[in-house]
Amino acid sequence: MLSKSQISYIKSLHLKKFRKESGIFITEGIKSITEFINSSYQIHSIYYTAAHLSSLPKNTANIKLFEVNNAELEKISTLQNPQGILALIHIPTQQNIVPKSLQNKFSLVLDNIQDPGNLGTIIRTADWFDIKNIICSEDTVEAYNPKTVQSTMGSLARTNIYYTNLKDFLRQTKLPIFGALLNGENIYKTIWPKEGLILLGNEGHGISDELIKEITTPVTIPNFGNAESLNVAVSAAIFCSEIKRNEK
Amino acid sequence: MLSKSQISYIKSLHLKKFRKESGIFITEGIKSITEFINSSYQIHSIYYTAAHLSSLPKNTANIKLFEVNNAELEKISTLQNPQGILALIHIPTQQNIVPKSLQNKFSLVLDNIQDPGNLGTIIRTADWFDIKNIICSEDTVEAYNPKTVQSTMGSLARTNIYYTNLKDFLRQTKLPIFGALLNGENIYKTIWPKEGLILLGNEGHGISDELIKEITTPVTIPNFGNAESLNVAVSAAIFCSEIKRNEK
Repeated sequence: MLSKSQISYIKSLHLKKFRKESGIFITEGIKSITEFINSSYQIHSIYYTAAHLSSLPKNTANIKLFEVNNAELEKISTLQNPQGILALIHIPTQQNIVPKSLQNKFSLVLDNIQDPGNLGTIIRTADWFDIKNIICSEDTVEAYNPKTVQSTMGSLARTNIYYTNLKDFLRQTKLPIFGALLNGENIYKTIWPKEGLILLGNEGHGISDELIKEITTPVTIPNFGNAESLNVAVSAAIFCSEIKRNEK
Repeated sequence: MLSKSQISYIKSLHLKKFRKESGIFITEGIKSITEFINSSYQIHSIYYTAAHLSSLPKNTANIKLFEVNNAELEKISTLQNPQGILALIHIPTQQNIVPKSLQNKFSLVLDNIQDPGNLGTIIRTADWFDIKNIICSEDTVEAYNPKTVQSTMGSLARTNIYYTNLKDFLRQTKLPIFGALLNGENIYKTIWPKEGLILLGNEGHGISDELIKEITTPVTIPNFGNAESLNVAVSAAIFCSEIKRNEK
């Protein structure tokens, strides 16, 4: 049984303002919660219905557990169809990017991605292709938005997400910067070095002008048909696939 | 100025039941509407605010035009941020699949895709890669769902969407059937013939057992990292890209 103030606190975390104030975000579903428990993230508390008691992970010492009824879960859930279990998780302290940690690998750089589902899908795809670092512009949608968290399907727990001033970051890096543009070299002919950055732009406006200047190699996914553009998560996936395809 | 009954009629089209009854769907935004006007779709009517008068396409003879105010547009729109112009379009009569029209090319086959945004993104991606035919199981989400229509970004106007009994269809076709599975051959080593079908499964459960039997070549996107699966629109995109990449 939750108190009114507990319910209203958790509901407040549906909103970015209150997530920021309290440093807590929500994730739902046993799979995602288990991924966070097995990661470096620190779990604040778990709310589960009786039917989900048996699916609770074993290693929940030091985590506050609350059994709730369906009506309570519906109130605190961000989902249309709540999954029987919800956790509050501490937002990790923003780390500085250590340039050395980006060497000998590829990382994604996202300029002003706005759709939480797109960001979540990009994080999930990056995890599939073993891309560990995603560097976002400060105006990119928050990774702890409930829609983003859900669409990462647990991959958020394994991915380093940074928010930073991209202009400064790209000016300082020594890595090659591959930009997803409409008039670059054919991605299918691109020879990928062992390390680099893949820069992807906003859903409607693409990469901002001040960042386009920093691109060392503009790269294009050829257009075979008539669509004007690809969804940014789709573009990200094709870039990840192309970078990795010679490794297997 | 719209009458109450006009508003309530358009609002009813937000729901599948009423779209089916009336054979009409909604699309919004000047870009998407222009694509439909320039296609074989038949436009029923267009609703625009005064500010969008100048952006109205020229070839609107035989289309009923209604100037509306912002409050009216907000009422009839399916979007949180209406785009100033909305059209009602006739759902085309379901055509039978002509087997010959699938020869010498690749088509996508979708088994029980449930998320309207995923279906829309798949249609948009298919259009980019010049894949003209998408054959859906009868339980796949409706292509005229407003979220699907919006996420196709106009590509719906250029793509043939069929809904059919996939078991019967796959049993009858003579085309090779490539299925996106977790234990198939490496997609990066697959040798693609000049024609075939790409079968993709439901977001949670993959391809249904009765259809797995019909697959001639199971194909897998190798997993380099830790995610358990890829989003289905992402998988579709990587398949489309791999089929086409040797053409450019």
